[in-house]
Amino acid sequence: MYLRDIQQALGGEVIGEAGAPLTGVGTLEGAGANQISFLANPKYRGALASTAAGALIVGPAHRELTTLPRIVAANPYAYFARVAQLFSAPPAAVAGVHPSAVIHPGARVAATASIAEFVSIGAGAVIGEHAVIGAGCVIGEQATIGDGTRLAARVTLYRRCHVGARGNIHAGVVIGADGFGFAPDFTPTAGAWVKIPQTGGVRIGDDVEIGANTTIDRGAIDDTVIGNDVKLDNQIQIGHNCVIGDHTIISGCVGIAGSARIGRRVMIGGAAGILGHLEICDGAIISAMTLVTKSITEPGTYTASMPLMKHEDWLKNAVQLRRLDALADAIKKGGAK
Amino acid sequence: MYLRDIQQALGGEVIGEAGAPLTGVGTLEGAGANQISFLANPKYRGALASTAAGALIVGPAHRELTTLPRIVAANPYAYFARVAQLFSAPPAAVAGVHPSAVIHPGARVAATASIAEFVSIGAGAVIGEHAVIGAGCVIGEQATIGDGTRLAARVTLYRRCHVGARGNIHAGVVIGADGFGFAPDFTPTAGAWVKIPQTGGVRIGDDVEIGANTTIDRGAIDDTVIGNDVKLDNQIQIGHNCVIGDHTIISGCVGIAGSARIGRRVMIGGAAGILGHLEICDGAIISAMTLVTKSITEPGTYTASMPLMKHEDWLKNAVQLRRLDALADAIKKGGAK
Amino acid sequence: MYLRDIQQALGGEVIGEAGAPLTGVGTLEGAGANQISFLANPKYRGALASTAAGALIVGPAHRELTTLPRIVAANPYAYFARVAQLFSAPPAAVAGVHPSAVIHPGARVAATASIAEFVSIGAGAVIGEHAVIGAGCVIGEQATIGDGTRLAARVTLYRRCHVGARGNIHAGVVIGADGFGFAPDFTPTAGAWVKIPQTGGVRIGDDVEIGANTTIDRGAIDDTVIGNDVKLDNQIQIGHNCVIGDHTIISGCVGIAGSARIGRRVMIGGAAGILGHLEICDGAIISAMTLVTKSITEPGTYTASMPLMKHEDWLKNAVQLRRLDALADAIKKGGAK
Repeated sequence: MYLRDIQQALGGEVIGEAGAPLTGVGTLEGAGANQISFLANPKYRGALASTAAGALIVGPAHRELTTLPRIVAANPYAYFARVAQLFSAPPAAVAGVHPSAVIHPGARVAATASIAEFVSIGAGAVIGEHAVIGAGCVIGEQATIGDGTRLAARVTLYRRCHVGARGNIHAGVVIGADGFGFAPDFTPTAGAWVKIPQTGGVRIGDDVEIGANTTIDRGAIDDTVIGNDVKLDNQIQIGHNCVIGDHTIISGCVGIAGSARIGRRVMIGGAAGILGHLEICDGAIISAMTLVTKSITEPGTYTASMPLMKHEDWLKNAVQLRRLDALADAIKKGGAK
Repeated sequence: MYLRDIQQALGGEVIGEAGAPLTGVGTLEGAGANQISFLANPKYRGALASTAAGALIVGPAHRELTTLPRIVAANPYAYFARVAQLFSAPPAAVAGVHPSAVIHPGARVAATASIAEFVSIGAGAVIGEHAVIGAGCVIGEQATIGDGTRLAARVTLYRRCHVGARGNIHAGVVIGADGFGFAPDFTPTAGAWVKIPQTGGVRIGDDVEIGANTTIDRGAIDDTVIGNDVKLDNQIQIGHNCVIGDHTIISGCVGIAGSARIGRRVMIGGAAGILGHLEICDGAIISAMTLVTKSITEPGTYTASMPLMKHEDWLKNAVQLRRLDALADAIKKGGAK
Repeated sequence: MYLRDIQQALGGEVIGEAGAPLTGVGTLEGAGANQISFLANPKYRGALASTAAGALIVGPAHRELTTLPRIVAANPYAYFARVAQLFSAPPAAVAGVHPSAVIHPGARVAATASIAEFVSIGAGAVIGEHAVIGAGCVIGEQATIGDGTRLAARVTLYRRCHVGARGNIHAGVVIGADGFGFAPDFTPTAGAWVKIPQTGGVRIGDDVEIGANTTIDRGAIDDTVIGNDVKLDNQIQIGHNCVIGDHTIISGCVGIAGSARIGRRVMIGGAAGILGHLEICDGAIISAMTLVTKSITEPGTYTASMPLMKHEDWLKNAVQLRRLDALADAIKKGGAK
């Protein structure tokens, strides 16, 4: 593939000639003569001089920073991602149903779909065109998988849960397990938790990515809803009846309690926690390991993590932290303003 | 189903006539004329006036707050949960063993149990009456599943682990993986970790719910023990030799290190962490994302999370937090009392 | 087995005679007359007087603290672990391929390997001598499993990922799912995330243990790398392109973001978080639930957790924590030094 081929596929302006055919992408530091790299962040411009890449993608402001063959694109990073996609088609999947798969009565599997070994597809489920269902997946009754959606191995979709088109769902994901709802029925000496049946489902939009071992619970009465183009990393937990807006992106290990409403284009850092029954407005940014305990109504970045300390410093500071209110009182009484 | 049918099944007092047959449950805001809703928390009493529900469940103190057909029950929320169960039986499961399942020699499967496709049941394992084992589950050698317990798809129970009766275990759960135990055997220049075999098992009581992708490790020598009516949400990690008392309820993403002893009716909020070799007394409440670093010996609520701040405020406060001990010293030297 | 047999297998010095054959190991409190226990930490020496163990393992400094038959070893805890291994071989596995397993063309399975039911082994994959692949595992194309490595049930290894020799990988582990990489391509009114193909792999060294439901993502361009003798607990998330040094040990629920470089013999406590693109030096210790936000360049223990408080104290302290910078300012203005 030459620069001209890329430009014809993706647009942009070519400057210079590609001296060698390109076989892939690379970082500025790692790319060789047959690879194309990119500059998006000006702080890496120093690496331009020493890169061994055969070609570059740069933004309009950096078009003259290099003499290498290059493509000028409005968004070099997104352009680079699309170039990488050109070089890296997802693993091929052959249409058809593996003989070991169990397709229950009334399920409909598109002729162009690929169903791997040890897959179970429940009664009344629908698998869309060109969908790929990896080995060991379990699709519940009346669940639906949209066109072009790919499930890696060992994904579980419970009954009546729905995934849109062009999704990418990784191994170990569980969609539609019961939400966590129990009514306490105790006296001082006896009693038990009474399970609240979880009769809602899960609706997931188009172009959604879900990372390995992430779990999304079904709703109690209404559905849990994940918007379009939502990107979820690994080991995220989403409670029942959450609603997550389009284009929101969530890093690994985040936990979201039931009935939280997350807006559009929200960004949530790794291992953050969101309590239930609150709202986070469009465009808000939550830092890593931050616990959100109340609604966020205006965009901005929100943080609630302890700063890192040497343990011996932490020990001393923690003592004071436990008596911070008393310290504040002392300041007040001491006359400090 | 009419109010009278519900009352006959579950008790309570009927006031008024049900004008229409009831087909399900709903929230005060969402229920229609064929649905029954409930009022448990007085702060929602304002919604009574506008609800379109066909019938209600209320407590004795609220019996006259509405003119709708209603059932008066001592615990309206628990009553509502039981009504919802009446309307929502768990998915039916046909007794019998799917022909693809592998039942190893010496395993005993009750005639009324349901074993789905691609299930593996190890030598000497026992599956109780009316148990339901979902597709792709792996039950280890000499493991036991009690009567009426349901495993969703892809649950793993290692050898010699035991689940009681009427349990509900969700997809991706792993019970009985090795506890995390290694003895360091290093010199300054060489060495390695030496694995401590994990030869105990896991014993889980009756009426236990375990959420998707939760993991419970087997004990090192003795067993890990989960009491009766314990409710575990998704993605919880329970280390080896933990003991968890009856009726304790734990929210998603909680991690509990080895040999922690958690009492009865403890409530643990999401993403909390419990260090190992400590005790938490009966009835204690741990807030979300709180790290418990020492034993808790008296009931109450315990918290250890940073409060949420705008990031720019956090930056300034974090600087002071790192030097809190010096600040306290300055207060003392400055004469503040 | 008698003390002499153990000494012949593992070295050390025998003192006294074993009166009874030994059948296993136990704690000082729990062991009976047929079990051997150990004393490593002097603070437990008080338990020596009351132990019912039939024999002990002690260090050179404690050789005369007991009159029980004993073995004196330089590292009693590691010695004990090895004795426990003598008494507890891992579950036997019969060589051969279960008839239900699907071995894709070009895969090579060693004759001494054991492949359980419902296993899928992709084209070109290689399974080493004496490897054990549990029920329901999915091994991707061109992936490799080293000699003697054991996979429990339902492990997923994506294409072109590699595990070394003598590994121990628990149920639900996912190795090689896509790293979390998306380029934003938004205008104020439209746009979407553009996926960056994850074309690297995962390389895992020898003698690595990986706990249940842990996930290790494949690299974006280069590989994600896990060194030799690394020990990972359950539900850990390791992002793309992380590099983890030999002998590092990580407790459960830890999340490590992409491109973090963790040194050798690092110890990371449970539920800690490590941000991406930073380094942690050899031998560093990270406390539980600590967020590492910058590189750590010198060994030592680092901590960033809130101390536990009664909730009513926390409420008061949290108010002051939110205005800590203002408090510091007040101290300064008040003349405190």
